[in-house]
Amino acid sequence: VKRPPEGDPIALGAGAEFDAIRAMIVRWGTRARGLGDDAAVLQVPRGDSLVASVDSAVEGRHFQREWFSAREIGYRAVAAALSDLAAMAARPLGVLVAVTIPAEWRQELDELAEGIGEAASASGAPIVGGNTTDGDALSITTTVLGTAFSVLRRDAVRDGDNMYLTGRLGGPAAALRALRGGKKPDLEHRDRLVHPTPRIREARWLAERGAHAAIDVSDGLAADLGHLAAASGVGIEVDLDCVPRVSSVSALDAAASGEEYELVVAAAGALDAVEFERTFGIPLTVIGRARAGEVGVMLSQGGARVANPPGYDHLSR
Amino acid sequence: VKRPPEGDPIALGAGAEFDAIRAMIVRWGTRARGLGDDAAVLQVPRGDSLVASVDSAVEGRHFQREWFSAREIGYRAVAAALSDLAAMAARPLGVLVAVTIPAEWRQELDELAEGIGEAASASGAPIVGGNTTDGDALSITTTVLGTAFSVLRRDAVRDGDNMYLTGRLGGPAAALRALRGGKKPDLEHRDRLVHPTPRIREARWLAERGAHAAIDVSDGLAADLGHLAAASGVGIEVDLDCVPRVSSVSALDAAASGEEYELVVAAAGALDAVEFERTFGIPLTVIGRARAGEVGVMLSQGGARVANPPGYDHLSR
Repeated sequence: VKRPPEGDPIALGAGAEFDAIRAMIVRWGTRARGLGDDAAVLQVPRGDSLVASVDSAVEGRHFQREWFSAREIGYRAVAAALSDLAAMAARPLGVLVAVTIPAEWRQELDELAEGIGEAASASGAPIVGGNTTDGDALSITTTVLGTAFSVLRRDAVRDGDNMYLTGRLGGPAAALRALRGGKKPDLEHRDRLVHPTPRIREARWLAERGAHAAIDVSDGLAADLGHLAAASGVGIEVDLDCVPRVSSVSALDAAASGEEYELVVAAAGALDAVEFERTFGIPLTVIGRARAGEVGVMLSQGGARVANPPGYDHLSR
Repeated sequence: VKRPPEGDPIALGAGAEFDAIRAMIVRWGTRARGLGDDAAVLQVPRGDSLVASVDSAVEGRHFQREWFSAREIGYRAVAAALSDLAAMAARPLGVLVAVTIPAEWRQELDELAEGIGEAASASGAPIVGGNTTDGDALSITTTVLGTAFSVLRRDAVRDGDNMYLTGRLGGPAAALRALRGGKKPDLEHRDRLVHPTPRIREARWLAERGAHAAIDVSDGLAADLGHLAAASGVGIEVDLDCVPRVSSVSALDAAASGEEYELVVAAAGALDAVEFERTFGIPLTVIGRARAGEVGVMLSQGGARVANPPGYDHLSR
């Protein structure tokens, strides 16, 4: 073991595995903190709870290599994981990133690390841990850590609650449909797919103003409302005509579109949608109401009941 | 979305991905806690720091399918990750487990989950988060969360410190050599490979009695001492004749053996090895000393200097 080279950000031994970690750390710069020991050491503010979640993005399953740049793949993986902190209205404390890198991806490690760093710093989350291994498919598993004095859970929707949605749906599904058909996606749609925004600040704004339950839209609006309904033991009625959507997307396609990372929250009273849009530049819309009785999601369009679209299910293919 | 079936441990929607999560949760029973929301909510004792680390075990890279049962694969992955908490002398708070499951592994999910649950509960760590995805190779990425009032770091070895090692080395390397050669490994060696014990309680005992730096032996004794030496800016002299080893293993092979998950700690004075062995049933041995001056690891055997063996490097193959 040699003396670490001048300017080596952390003192690690020799070897290709450590070289890969070192290259990412150099790219992350001040966006990474406290790496180089067996584990990260972090402080949770007194009185706060720790909030933790893990999410994986696997090549060939969650994305096709030819659809995205390495930077976009890194960004999406970490942004999607951070969305789980938004769904709990937690402040980011840090992220840990485990990357499996096939040999043919090695030269794009720098761009991948850049995308990871972008997503982390956009949400104010330092990168506090990492792991690299060789493998046949690129995969990024991101653990997100956050803190909150009180969290927004899935099981707290009550009879009579208004159901609010942030932003506009449909972009990711429309972009994926184009990509799968070998077409160039509309730029607006593609941007929604490659640069999702975890609604971290929005979630805290909503929690502070009376939202008491939440979920993020990752499996599709209808499916995620189903998780909320099942966890809370309520029915949720949604008028699809009220669901804001990006251009050229049908209401039903918007309700089936996954990987949106918008939030659905429940509130007993009214939330100030005008102030929300002024603050964050995206709409906040009442899309339906919770009802005691049969558990599940009831969608309607033009006043008539419509069947629920299938949710996005990684293992069903 | 249907009403969750009677006895469903958590209220999730329908779909194969959720079925896989549900099957694991059923197997984990009371070993899993607080699953079913977007993230886990945990409490860090007042005054303690949060300790966090992530580790991956990938089929074909870290293990060959034919060498281990699904239960052993699950156990090893989680035990290895928990060893990073031992290396910091932290108490386990919980683990999050992200599993990529190829279709041909699906029927062994139950046994895999059982091994994961065994390793977690053996260290007193509840399973607080999980993720499943489809993929071509089985992989398990484990995030470990712990708490500690003060941690043992890699960078705190000082001139004159005694270097202590827990347990006996060499079993994993000997077992892997047999397996790679198509032979049946010695049972003692195999057991050390498939059932590593994270030295969680041992680490806290050592920290409470004056150990002030530590690392766990995952890359091999010589390589991990190299990490300690580089992080602390010291030289570490080790007499290989003093390194306890399992039967039928040479001293140099023992120093190169990875995935041991024994601990190396530094202490300014003497630690009570007799009391340690009485308490934990494994030896605690002075294997060398730290010296100011040239940074690195100096191994000797029979009074003569020997070259450092290569460390285990996942990306060098």
